[in-house]
Amino acid sequence: MPLNDNVAPTAQETESAPRHKGSPEPSSQGPVEEISPVQDPHGTERIDVEAIHDELMGKWQEIRQTTRDMIEDPALHKDETASYQDQRKRVLEQLKILVDQGAVHRAYPEYVGGQENPGGNIAGFEELVAADPSLQIKAGVQWGLFGAAVHQLGSEEHHRAWLPDIMSLKTPGAFAMTEIGHGSDVASVGTTATFDPDTDEFVIHTPFKAAWKDYLGNAAQDGVAAVVFAQLITRGVNHGVHAFYVPIRDEEGYNLPGVSSEDDGRKGGLNGIDNGRLAFDHVRIPRFNLLNRYGQVSEDGTYTSPIDSPGRRFFTTLGTLVQGRVSLDGSSVNAAKIGLSIAIRYAYERRQFSSGGDSEATLMSYQLHRRRLLPLLARTYAQAFAHHDLLETFDGVFSGREDTPENRAELETLAAALKPMSTWNALETLQVCREACGGSGYLTKNRFTSLYQDLDVYATFEGDNHILLQLVAKRLLGDYSKEFAGLDFGTITKYVSSRAEDLAVNRTGLRRAAQIIQDTGGSKKSAQALKDPKIQRDLLGDRVHTLISEAADALRPARKMRPEVATKLFNSQQVKLIDAARSHAELLQWEAMTEAVGTMEGKTAEVMTSLRDLFGLTLIEQNLGWYISYGLVSTQRGRVLGEYINRLLDKIEPYSLQLVEAFGYKQAHLRAEISSGIEAVRQADAEEYYRKLRASSDAPIDEKTLKKMNRGKSNKGSARKKR
Amino acid sequence: MPLNDNVAPTAQETESAPRHKGSPEPSSQGPVEEISPVQDPHGTERIDVEAIHDELMGKWQEIRQTTRDMIEDPALHKDETASYQDQRKRVLEQLKILVDQGAVHRAYPEYVGGQENPGGNIAGFEELVAADPSLQIKAGVQWGLFGAAVHQLGSEEHHRAWLPDIMSLKTPGAFAMTEIGHGSDVASVGTTATFDPDTDEFVIHTPFKAAWKDYLGNAAQDGVAAVVFAQLITRGVNHGVHAFYVPIRDEEGYNLPGVSSEDDGRKGGLNGIDNGRLAFDHVRIPRFNLLNRYGQVSEDGTYTSPIDSPGRRFFTTLGTLVQGRVSLDGSSVNAAKIGLSIAIRYAYERRQFSSGGDSEATLMSYQLHRRRLLPLLARTYAQAFAHHDLLETFDGVFSGREDTPENRAELETLAAALKPMSTWNALETLQVCREACGGSGYLTKNRFTSLYQDLDVYATFEGDNHILLQLVAKRLLGDYSKEFAGLDFGTITKYVSSRAEDLAVNRTGLRRAAQIIQDTGGSKKSAQALKDPKIQRDLLGDRVHTLISEAADALRPARKMRPEVATKLFNSQQVKLIDAARSHAELLQWEAMTEAVGTMEGKTAEVMTSLRDLFGLTLIEQNLGWYISYGLVSTQRGRVLGEYINRLLDKIEPYSLQLVEAFGYKQAHLRAEISSGIEAVRQADAEEYYRKLRASSDAPIDEKTLKKMNRGKSNKGSARKKR
Repeated sequence: MPLNDNVAPTAQETESAPRHKGSPEPSSQGPVEEISPVQDPHGTERIDVEAIHDELMGKWQEIRQTTRDMIEDPALHKDETASYQDQRKRVLEQLKILVDQGAVHRAYPEYVGGQENPGGNIAGFEELVAADPSLQIKAGVQWGLFGAAVHQLGSEEHHRAWLPDIMSLKTPGAFAMTEIGHGSDVASVGTTATFDPDTDEFVIHTPFKAAWKDYLGNAAQDGVAAVVFAQLITRGVNHGVHAFYVPIRDEEGYNLPGVSSEDDGRKGGLNGIDNGRLAFDHVRIPRFNLLNRYGQVSEDGTYTSPIDSPGRRFFTTLGTLVQGRVSLDGSSVNAAKIGLSIAIRYAYERRQFSSGGDSEATLMSYQLHRRRLLPLLARTYAQAFAHHDLLETFDGVFSGREDTPENRAELETLAAALKPMSTWNALETLQVCREACGGSGYLTKNRFTSLYQDLDVYATFEGDNHILLQLVAKRLLGDYSKEFAGLDFGTITKYVSSRAEDLAVNRTGLRRAAQIIQDTGGSKKSAQALKDPKIQRDLLGDRVHTLISEAADALRPARKMRPEVATKLFNSQQVKLIDAARSHAELLQWEAMTEAVGTMEGKTAEVMTSLRDLFGLTLIEQNLGWYISYGLVSTQRGRVLGEYINRLLDKIEPYSLQLVEAFGYKQAHLRAEISSGIEAVRQADAEEYYRKLRASSDAPIDEKTLKKMNRGKSNKGSARKKR
Repeated sequence: MPLNDNVAPTAQETESAPRHKGSPEPSSQGPVEEISPVQDPHGTERIDVEAIHDELMGKWQEIRQTTRDMIEDPALHKDETASYQDQRKRVLEQLKILVDQGAVHRAYPEYVGGQENPGGNIAGFEELVAADPSLQIKAGVQWGLFGAAVHQLGSEEHHRAWLPDIMSLKTPGAFAMTEIGHGSDVASVGTTATFDPDTDEFVIHTPFKAAWKDYLGNAAQDGVAAVVFAQLITRGVNHGVHAFYVPIRDEEGYNLPGVSSEDDGRKGGLNGIDNGRLAFDHVRIPRFNLLNRYGQVSEDGTYTSPIDSPGRRFFTTLGTLVQGRVSLDGSSVNAAKIGLSIAIRYAYERRQFSSGGDSEATLMSYQLHRRRLLPLLARTYAQAFAHHDLLETFDGVFSGREDTPENRAELETLAAALKPMSTWNALETLQVCREACGGSGYLTKNRFTSLYQDLDVYATFEGDNHILLQLVAKRLLGDYSKEFAGLDFGTITKYVSSRAEDLAVNRTGLRRAAQIIQDTGGSKKSAQALKDPKIQRDLLGDRVHTLISEAADALRPARKMRPEVATKLFNSQQVKLIDAARSHAELLQWEAMTEAVGTMEGKTAEVMTSLRDLFGLTLIEQNLGWYISYGLVSTQRGRVLGEYINRLLDKIEPYSLQLVEAFGYKQAHLRAEISSGIEAVRQADAEEYYRKLRASSDAPIDEKTLKKMNRGKSNKGSARKKR
């Protein structure tokens, strides 16, 4: 009997567990330290991976690379098994490493030791997600929110007074904006800061439980100060939300008198951060502690502001904090890149089910696996390019080079449009990748679940995604009505009612695209037309335009309504407006990718164009019902779109390993066991075993094969009989 | 100056944190122990919540209720903050409680102390998810996989030998099927069990690393035995995969000679379970240890089986383990119910942004919030009803009452269709609920993230969801060709080619639905037609039928092809086949819900019908592009579908609290801080504060209001001047 005794577990494997209780955890690093290119399954032509990489790294490539080099240090990696208390300790220590490495001060004024490089600062920050999202977000709380509020909302005196200790982490601090009862509606926070001219102080007060500041990093343990957002009240007038610098703990870590705190405890992820709640019981701070860039109170309690309109002042104040959204956009794209790098590599190493021949098929050879992963790869690319536009716009404004109200508004809308899409994309991508790697994907050591859990909250913090999309939609509505600024009101009404009569008749923006309705031939030609970038762009743009114009038409009567009724009317258009905002964001991503691809050449440009087409066409496919209903895509083309996308997948697939290689992550960044090459080694061992077995005389014969042979024999037998 | 000093934090709040270092975690239970009905925002008519509840609890209501009562005990609840090592200890202890409560033996034979009640057993098991998914799945490993394999694949001698200690947990065990290199493709496992007639033993062997058994609960620590699936080899013939009972650890917990184990370490969730790996180095077990229901080896090594075909034998063997899939389906529906119960309650308590009047608007008053939550509520209901059909089919087969090959096949297809949809629905629902509750939703104490993380793996274990859908698709293809069993091959070919020429011309199944293309009037009438259940059913059914027939047409030439080429052809239809399987599952859910709603009366029936319509129409909306392309829905109807769904949302919303009340969960099951009524208390406090403030003379006036008043004055002034 064959016992296969030549292929026992290796010595290393059996020796490590000879007579132990319980089971050892294998080292979480696989056998291969550096990523060796997976054996190319097709002998695929090389595209210019370096050029794509440079394009992906963008304007601040050097800072990004410096950060990536820095975070190869295991001291900066997430400890996946520590308790949340220990994770908090570890992350606090890691922040000190960032200080020592000078990794976190690039945005600050030169007079306090910064570099006044807002774009570079964010670029470096975004790369930290590969080390540990907790480390990243705790750094973001300290230097991107708490420190940035002092920087952006304070005066030079404030900077000189507080920034050095903030930068050195001598003063860890909280950014106390959100309240239990008011998240996205910051204008309605309940906390008050009432000026007392008798003592020249502000009195910070939490009037009820729902006004406790909540979910604040550094609030539960580490923070010794906070920037607190509160209603500024002086001389009996509420001047709206302003920011105040408030000490909260003494040097020993005890809460200062009047300050209460609670610990938010364990969270879905980001457990390296001590999120918590703060409340203030008539806490007094000097008048100086008002961060006074957009509002000042004089000794006698007189309020002055460079911005007269309270509404505009509020939005300007909040607008200074847009960098949080900008940086989450870039970070989320990076997290998606990490997930795809791991899952796509694994998809070329892991084999499952017969390929029809001797060996089993790699996961990536399955149409479904391509359909699951490659559209996410395309979307992640598009988002990466769109992020560059956002970051450069941010840098233009915050460096002061292009700081106009129009650019600020543009920046805020862009951030509000892109951040929701990229944070959701990261979650979807990580989840799909985790499922695509099966049980293996569920193990913490393979990163997907860990990243998902940490990134989860990116969808609702720094502006809830749906609220941000509403901001975008409102801006789009504003643009839409400006389009008709020259017309008097009667003209608009007439215009609007004429088109409401027949939704199928398109106009202005729509007319261009409407031409594609006319199919000129067979289904192949019909699908080909969708390759035309002009047609893709028109379709994506027309969707935004149509949704917005429909909502605008519906909302027109609101001006004459009582507020409650107008609110109801607005509510009736909410879903449509969110759809419009999403579509707008997708259009921006599509355009950014198209522009980036335009700089490439030869085969590289060809592959990247296919990837762009995949992005564009999956967007159209998602809303295919809408496109056909509105006559923008023909039913004939609608029927073949899925097939056309499948063909694109087959075209792109051979290059998908190179496309993740271009992300430029090393195993020190990916750190998944299954991205180490371990699976390829296992598969090779298994194939070698079966090869040897087949070559030997010991190989058992399959019962099925035997049965066939026997049937063959008996058939021959009966055949002989007949003769 | 008003200082609002009458509303400082309450004594309790400030006293609890007078001068402490760090911050206390507020007790994770809210102030209200039992769920008090949220104040009904509409004064809505009561529907028959009890009747819906009974329908949802189904045939084994009593066992479900007993289990729900049992798990109110905090000793059975998940410890959300324990380390994963401590979670493992806790869950092992919890299993002992289940034994003491007699909660886990309902399926076993009466002669070992069971109740031979397979359906009731699963019903009780499904309710355990509310206590702790780790507890549930560890119980599932012990009694639903390890014990069930002995039960289903062994003889009465095996039952008497091993089941008593398995039932009492004296023998914790692993279910060693999956290998590192072979998950869903069980037929290809590498582990061998070779019969040695000299010693009358099987030799269990792991020939290479990829053949290690992996992801097994109880393997890392607790298991003392395992049911191992291995290739049975005797007399030089491999008879395919059989199951063997293999002791793996001694009484002190040390691995037995030849057995190696590794710990899978921390996972994305389910960390109360000690998943790990096992390998066998020529481990010898008595011949008796072959679980011999479908294959026996005699002393001299002769193999016999009651099932002649190795393929059918393999699928029959695996088919006995279908209960895992059945129970995950029901458990996932329960997890979704828990998420919705929490999020929908919170949506009526939490307020955000102005409603146009004095108070702020509840989250549920927003169209978008309804759009996010209510379709998931509808889908969860549909899945709950579909699950009843599955569980009753399961009970019919496994009780022996209706155990025919046809029913077994039907059961397996049904389980394979429903389990993917419900596990994905649970994840999507929990994620949407978590986001709908903002930062609060991210805190572990509010359950969503904890449940999501535990449920995540339900999508890939007990059959990867996509693999299961492929099984369904293959079965649908089989049914499709049986449909034409009476025709000779030439007729099919002719039939197929005549329709391939014009995809737009529909036939048989399609013709009925095609009639709805003809719009008879305005858009309102056109949308109304979609309320007709017959039309909904036809649309859903036609999609399945069309997708399958298209794939079948494409696959027809495969029979004449070489395997590699046929594999490629099959691969080209994979995405379409998966779509068909999904649509088939959705149709089954729709039908189950329609049937359940049919038993209801009056207003209850009306509301539930709207909910069913919401389910059906969102399914059609998801594939609207397809429906219009194929001429089954008109473009005019396509354009109004979204609006029609919005109106349905508004109709259902007033009843949505009652619809989650019908799930019947108490706060002891939900255990989220935000499902305790805490937010309503906070909001009431805040409203009371503002009410008092407005009534007092201390209220600060808003700068905006002041400006308006001043403008008013100066206008009057200038007006006066003019006069």
